[in-house]
Amino acid sequence: MVKKDIRYTELAKYYDLTHYFRNYEQQAEFLNSAIKKYFPAAHRILDIACGTGNHAIFMAKKGYDVTGVDLSQKMLNIARQKIKNTDLQVGFTYGNMKDLKFSSEFDVVYCLGMSFMELRTYDEINSCLTSIKRAIKLKGLFIFDVSNGWEMLSVKTRKDFAEDAKTKVIWLSGGYIDKLKRTMHLDYTFIIQENNKTAIESGVEELRIFFPDELRMLLTNANFKIEVMLGDRDLETPFKENSPHIVMINRKIT
Amino acid sequence: MVKKDIRYTELAKYYDLTHYFRNYEQQAEFLNSAIKKYFPAAHRILDIACGTGNHAIFMAKKGYDVTGVDLSQKMLNIARQKIKNTDLQVGFTYGNMKDLKFSSEFDVVYCLGMSFMELRTYDEINSCLTSIKRAIKLKGLFIFDVSNGWEMLSVKTRKDFAEDAKTKVIWLSGGYIDKLKRTMHLDYTFIIQENNKTAIESGVEELRIFFPDELRMLLTNANFKIEVMLGDRDLETPFKENSPHIVMINRKIT
Amino acid sequence: MVKKDIRYTELAKYYDLTHYFRNYEQQAEFLNSAIKKYFPAAHRILDIACGTGNHAIFMAKKGYDVTGVDLSQKMLNIARQKIKNTDLQVGFTYGNMKDLKFSSEFDVVYCLGMSFMELRTYDEINSCLTSIKRAIKLKGLFIFDVSNGWEMLSVKTRKDFAEDAKTKVIWLSGGYIDKLKRTMHLDYTFIIQENNKTAIESGVEELRIFFPDELRMLLTNANFKIEVMLGDRDLETPFKENSPHIVMINRKIT
Amino acid sequence: MVKKDIRYTELAKYYDLTHYFRNYEQQAEFLNSAIKKYFPAAHRILDIACGTGNHAIFMAKKGYDVTGVDLSQKMLNIARQKIKNTDLQVGFTYGNMKDLKFSSEFDVVYCLGMSFMELRTYDEINSCLTSIKRAIKLKGLFIFDVSNGWEMLSVKTRKDFAEDAKTKVIWLSGGYIDKLKRTMHLDYTFIIQENNKTAIESGVEELRIFFPDELRMLLTNANFKIEVMLGDRDLETPFKENSPHIVMINRKIT
Amino acid sequence: MVKKDIRYTELAKYYDLTHYFRNYEQQAEFLNSAIKKYFPAAHRILDIACGTGNHAIFMAKKGYDVTGVDLSQKMLNIARQKIKNTDLQVGFTYGNMKDLKFSSEFDVVYCLGMSFMELRTYDEINSCLTSIKRAIKLKGLFIFDVSNGWEMLSVKTRKDFAEDAKTKVIWLSGGYIDKLKRTMHLDYTFIIQENNKTAIESGVEELRIFFPDELRMLLTNANFKIEVMLGDRDLETPFKENSPHIVMINRKIT
Amino acid sequence: MVKKDIRYTELAKYYDLTHYFRNYEQQAEFLNSAIKKYFPAAHRILDIACGTGNHAIFMAKKGYDVTGVDLSQKMLNIARQKIKNTDLQVGFTYGNMKDLKFSSEFDVVYCLGMSFMELRTYDEINSCLTSIKRAIKLKGLFIFDVSNGWEMLSVKTRKDFAEDAKTKVIWLSGGYIDKLKRTMHLDYTFIIQENNKTAIESGVEELRIFFPDELRMLLTNANFKIEVMLGDRDLETPFKENSPHIVMINRKIT
Repeated sequence: MVKKDIRYTELAKYYDLTHYFRNYEQQAEFLNSAIKKYFPAAHRILDIACGTGNHAIFMAKKGYDVTGVDLSQKMLNIARQKIKNTDLQVGFTYGNMKDLKFSSEFDVVYCLGMSFMELRTYDEINSCLTSIKRAIKLKGLFIFDVSNGWEMLSVKTRKDFAEDAKTKVIWLSGGYIDKLKRTMHLDYTFIIQENNKTAIESGVEELRIFFPDELRMLLTNANFKIEVMLGDRDLETPFKENSPHIVMINRKIT
Repeated sequence: MVKKDIRYTELAKYYDLTHYFRNYEQQAEFLNSAIKKYFPAAHRILDIACGTGNHAIFMAKKGYDVTGVDLSQKMLNIARQKIKNTDLQVGFTYGNMKDLKFSSEFDVVYCLGMSFMELRTYDEINSCLTSIKRAIKLKGLFIFDVSNGWEMLSVKTRKDFAEDAKTKVIWLSGGYIDKLKRTMHLDYTFIIQENNKTAIESGVEELRIFFPDELRMLLTNANFKIEVMLGDRDLETPFKENSPHIVMINRKIT
Repeated sequence: MVKKDIRYTELAKYYDLTHYFRNYEQQAEFLNSAIKKYFPAAHRILDIACGTGNHAIFMAKKGYDVTGVDLSQKMLNIARQKIKNTDLQVGFTYGNMKDLKFSSEFDVVYCLGMSFMELRTYDEINSCLTSIKRAIKLKGLFIFDVSNGWEMLSVKTRKDFAEDAKTKVIWLSGGYIDKLKRTMHLDYTFIIQENNKTAIESGVEELRIFFPDELRMLLTNANFKIEVMLGDRDLETPFKENSPHIVMINRKIT
Repeated sequence: MVKKDIRYTELAKYYDLTHYFRNYEQQAEFLNSAIKKYFPAAHRILDIACGTGNHAIFMAKKGYDVTGVDLSQKMLNIARQKIKNTDLQVGFTYGNMKDLKFSSEFDVVYCLGMSFMELRTYDEINSCLTSIKRAIKLKGLFIFDVSNGWEMLSVKTRKDFAEDAKTKVIWLSGGYIDKLKRTMHLDYTFIIQENNKTAIESGVEELRIFFPDELRMLLTNANFKIEVMLGDRDLETPFKENSPHIVMINRKIT
Repeated sequence: MVKKDIRYTELAKYYDLTHYFRNYEQQAEFLNSAIKKYFPAAHRILDIACGTGNHAIFMAKKGYDVTGVDLSQKMLNIARQKIKNTDLQVGFTYGNMKDLKFSSEFDVVYCLGMSFMELRTYDEINSCLTSIKRAIKLKGLFIFDVSNGWEMLSVKTRKDFAEDAKTKVIWLSGGYIDKLKRTMHLDYTFIIQENNKTAIESGVEELRIFFPDELRMLLTNANFKIEVMLGDRDLETPFKENSPHIVMINRKIT
Repeated sequence: MVKKDIRYTELAKYYDLTHYFRNYEQQAEFLNSAIKKYFPAAHRILDIACGTGNHAIFMAKKGYDVTGVDLSQKMLNIARQKIKNTDLQVGFTYGNMKDLKFSSEFDVVYCLGMSFMELRTYDEINSCLTSIKRAIKLKGLFIFDVSNGWEMLSVKTRKDFAEDAKTKVIWLSGGYIDKLKRTMHLDYTFIIQENNKTAIESGVEELRIFFPDELRMLLTNANFKIEVMLGDRDLETPFKENSPHIVMINRKIT
């Protein structure tokens, strides 16, 4: 019984509902502050693993010229739907962060919302950093976040619930750590009530466990200058050992 | 997404089914024994936070003249339905335990089934104790129970199941402790199969965490005389540190 | 609310789906290897607690003459359905492992898949060993497995998911240990989506907790010779203290 | 580095000091009550694994004719020292509980203080029960205690301290469970200050882990009638699953 | 075996050595900042439970006129020794914080270093708050710290080590919570090497477990105005639920 | 109070006693088997971080020409003492594994006994791998072991005891993980009885936490060919996720 990655299935349509707890607007505010502090002249920005477009649309509203890339056509379609009747300067296009087709085009590339953890081997990470660095103009920024690996070590069974006007969803998640690969396997089951019917869906995710000392080494080896390592999407919150996230602002210097 | 308190929603109709494990009859026996021991002449009694009337009806069957008050009209309606074709001496009426409209009317006031834990601040507790004391006749009793705070400190994810002739319910609960307020937030999701359809419901509860030394102080400060502190609804079970409950029998002495 | 043993209810029809993780073919390979090593001439074999017939059918395919017995008519019917249009040498019949109606008939009796843990008292175990020993020919084998009791001591709440072409099932399990009887009580709830409808089912299981030193004593007292104690269904895996299972190969010597 | 069993070394002289928390007098009261209830005519009693004689001397003070046996000459010497200038009816002699040289001589045999747990295999247990049964008169009692195996499963590192007029002792203990033998290995280190000097000592103990259902089987198989299973040395405390001890009162009936 | 409170024994002479990890200078800096912010005109200050005088001496060096009181003559003697050849404006005197002999004399009273936790009942706390309030001038401050009760709930066995030029100390601590009194009992054993000799000492401490919501109530009821609740001795660190300490700055307003 | 690294203090003389549980002979057998399998012609070998020479002496007894280097003169002196009156082909010399003064001299370099974990940063690791690679002849081997990082994540307080003819030692260890550096800080206290006197010593160690996927990357980046990753010093034990150690055999290929 092969389980399906939740990002590329019918579950995409519940993505926004089941990620209600992510404050996209506040994360976009953080991005904006970081850009204002570290590269105030920035205008063209690239959102990699843009999903249903939430960060990208907020950034476009702030006046940036935004391109969003993702591997899921289902998610890109939802993103495009959201901007259909707007005149926001934002485009959504299929693209793989390990092989971006851009060369010194963007002032800022960002990857928020934990997608960087989908890079599961050193080869994938290094390919991705090379591909991203190529896409950024000299002196431009690469901003991304991952979970703090130390906090991922205790995987807990969870249940969550969300609802909107027409849908109610319960989802149960569990998981285990693959210690040979240093990844976390999460599996989800969803019970979804919609249009008077209740259905079951299921999916999986496999995420790499990153430690802060190693991220410093990886970015440094890729010739980025690490401007700052934060513990959350907030310029005033330096990384500490029990921080929930590792958020890094890095500059292309060669 | 504001979550709803489960006591005041459509979930009221599943209240009795999902509380099947509460032995109301046995609790009423305990109340009766306590009254026979500490105030044998008692006749008029008040059940605060009476819910769907289970304790009150058992007490009425034992010959007491019972008044039940609650804040949920939905629960009061279910309670009234249960006594429609009986001649029991019991009435159910809307009322708030922090502001009871009675003055020296009752021989005994009781609050069983953990509702006292819905008093979440010292102000609420003190208002409630004042309001209850006013409702009791001099020498009358106030009997109530709460969970033992020491036992509440480990909140566990749980699943439960119950069924009757026409309904099956699975409910999942989880929670966390708010250490600033010293309350426990519980959230529930219900999967309910009824009349060939399956639906999802959700709700929350916020309960205060009480410790035994503090309850002694609070009742004493409110000028009650503490007759006994029990570890369960059983006169032979004194409170011990790992008791599941704190059950107090108190007398109005001034 | 009396809960039902899951083996004897409508849940039988989901048995194969929810036990998908059991590799019956591999277990049959183990049985075959064990027989080839310890009693190569064996031909007639008895599968006790055969369930839906998975082991028995694989063994018949290997050329053995197999009889399967079980207490659940629902499961036996599913087993019979599976062999309807085959010419395999296998029969399924109602039978109780504590009172088998056979006398020195089989070269090998086996009980794989944890059913031996349904024997919950020393009386039941001893009756069963006597009944099994009577069914085996002199020098014949009795092969069975149980969970390693040491590994059962931590009961965890679990969720699982399985699906086939027409059914999706989520099942949640929890449990507790009865320390007076030394058994584990497991309770299950199933959420089943089938033919466009979603339903809830529930059931229980009570299993004895066996320790390795005690099994040695019990088999020895029943006059079996213990050929080997394994830690899994694999002749190369001796039992160690953290093995998941205890698998014993025993010979009738008197 | 072979470690030494603490019962047979120089540590014997600290035995009473480091077991200060055992209330021997209260345990002797329990023994006396049990005898008065279950065999009031008893006079001659045998204390097996009598150690430094604490129980035996209390029983002699109550008027019983007491014999104490132990395997440690060092402990027996301390016991004899205690009664040197008394006229108590008590004698201390070398003896092994698995091979007692008595035949139908005693009204009561008891083994209090956990020594029964030094029987580490079914063979040793059965030899001991046979040897004890032979020593008891028909209708006589066998009273013993062990730790509740369920409570032994979590071995904790501990430190303890005791002092008397001339000695101070810190002792540290740790341990592990041998799951193949079902025994607990405890190791101790002692730091002892005496006569202005501080020294280090070390020792080990290996104890069997007993469960209540199994003890019932073992005593029944040895043809004892189990009069009662208690949870502590107190006739009013029935055994419950979280009781610290298992205390059994058994009668020789054949 | 009655155990001795470590504050009133020969162990006093090791107090400074075994509390090396307390940064008294930094705590005095905090006190000074707090006074500069909340009562800049303050000059006369009272240190209750001053111990060996560490805080008081630092405060005197900052120019305050300091009085220190303590219950342990042994500790007061060490404190006096420290100031013998100085001209600091500081005095050390015997005094009980529950019954201080001062009336509106001090601008600031403080109690740092966890001694407030030695108040183990509501009566003791209320006596102490009354006694302290009397000692303070109108508008003066009361500054104190306790451990955050939430962080005290997991008592861990610990070992520590400290040394100075002539002494080495290992100390082992363990403890348990008395849930009826809501106190933590800590017991300590010390192994002390000094002057070529090694000795053992032992002692105990019993501390109340305070929660933040309750401290707010207690100070408010005692008619203090709570200026701020901090999570450590640092004006920039507000109290959060996992803060190690509760540090309160309170003003006498009536 | 600066704590001292235990490897460079008076504690060196207790090194062999307190590491009695390391089976040096068996580890030397493993080394020999590994060399016989992967580089049978090897003769000149280098033991880095050789300590008191245990591995090196066993290897010399097997006929190899062995050089041992270490940073602790105290340990080297003990090693030299052991070979004083032998004619073994082994020399002990001061040397730092991050800056070895050898060039293509050795057939095999090994580092057994966890010293590789003293390399606490990527810079130290890379310097060391470069220095080691330079010391090895082309096609030669580098064999080393570290603890499995996954198993290091739970640091436990421990006590241990060892004795020989004239010394008894109790040692207590504890520790914590520095999550920013990814190292484990261990601190030890020793209570040592020798020549009728008892003394206290103390020391610390800081060890890097290595994960298997990262070691593969590091050795590969240093241009070693990884011949095999084992889970213990045994050629038949492949590395698994719960293996206690990571043992790597690597070949210089460029």
